[in-house]
Amino acid sequence: MRKEIRISGFGGQGIVLAGVVLGRAAAVYEGYNAVQTQSYGPEARGGASRSDVIVSDEEVMYPYVRRPDFLVTMSQEAYEKYVGSVPEDGLVVYDSTLVEPSREDVEHVGVPATELAEEELGLRIVANMVILGALRELTGIVSFDSLRKAVEDSVPPGTEDVNVRALKLGAREVRE
Amino acid sequence: MRKEIRISGFGGQGIVLAGVVLGRAAAVYEGYNAVQTQSYGPEARGGASRSDVIVSDEEVMYPYVRRPDFLVTMSQEAYEKYVGSVPEDGLVVYDSTLVEPSREDVEHVGVPATELAEEELGLRIVANMVILGALRELTGIVSFDSLRKAVEDSVPPGTEDVNVRALKLGAREVRE
Repeated sequence: MRKEIRISGFGGQGIVLAGVVLGRAAAVYEGYNAVQTQSYGPEARGGASRSDVIVSDEEVMYPYVRRPDFLVTMSQEAYEKYVGSVPEDGLVVYDSTLVEPSREDVEHVGVPATELAEEELGLRIVANMVILGALRELTGIVSFDSLRKAVEDSVPPGTEDVNVRALKLGAREVRE
Repeated sequence: MRKEIRISGFGGQGIVLAGVVLGRAAAVYEGYNAVQTQSYGPEARGGASRSDVIVSDEEVMYPYVRRPDFLVTMSQEAYEKYVGSVPEDGLVVYDSTLVEPSREDVEHVGVPATELAEEELGLRIVANMVILGALRELTGIVSFDSLRKAVEDSVPPGTEDVNVRALKLGAREVRE
């Protein structure tokens, strides 16, 4: 098993943190090998942000994402840039507050992550955790409990609760 | 030129963000190639955190750090784990609020990053930016301006100022 996950959006949305949390959940709490990378091209100027995670049964020798099995996207620009690289059996999870999808031959699930974060939790900045909770629920790539622990390890002290609530909000949104 | 930088500490200190900002400064604003990675071993359980950055003139084919030219460490545990891998011409920058160094054959610079962040800015969580500002000042690996822009791209909206002030605080601390 090797899964390539790309999380994308713009700077300040916590894209990187979402990737880090997912990698940590998979490796530390599920026993997989995981590597999370950022490579930065000139397109990152102005604030495009991207976080790639490889989760594998085996050692990850080649940690770059070429064909993301799962693409998470929290900006239109990122959506347009990366949606073409998703294979036909892949999955796109997008923040429907911010992204209008266009590709039709790949499964898409929209989650109004930014809206939910703002309206339900009063904190736009946890939209990343809302969409991560949705991704987990849709893919089962790690257990909820592993994801929760990885969040608790990774977020600033004192913000654990609101981040875990955001995960649950995203999960609930796609279960309904 | 290929420089390997490892930033280490515990979860919630913003270790990963520091690596991301450095990689972005080098790649987006200085035109280098840069890759930032996290690999997660079982030792990450409980919250050890590590962020590796490779900055290079050439494409980064092998993005793993083996012998960090620059080691930044914000916890005693991380210090002890990684200090042995620094080559003799390397540099260790440590948070002297939290770390008591032991190795003597490699250059060390202590910066009371957590204390400065708390006392000067009232915000412990920007200690990562204090130490990053110090690292930049000591190594010149990127310009201050590139680092500042990368910070502004990467931190949550509304927190740019305090993060940039933290960078400056760290730079000033090692200049004096």
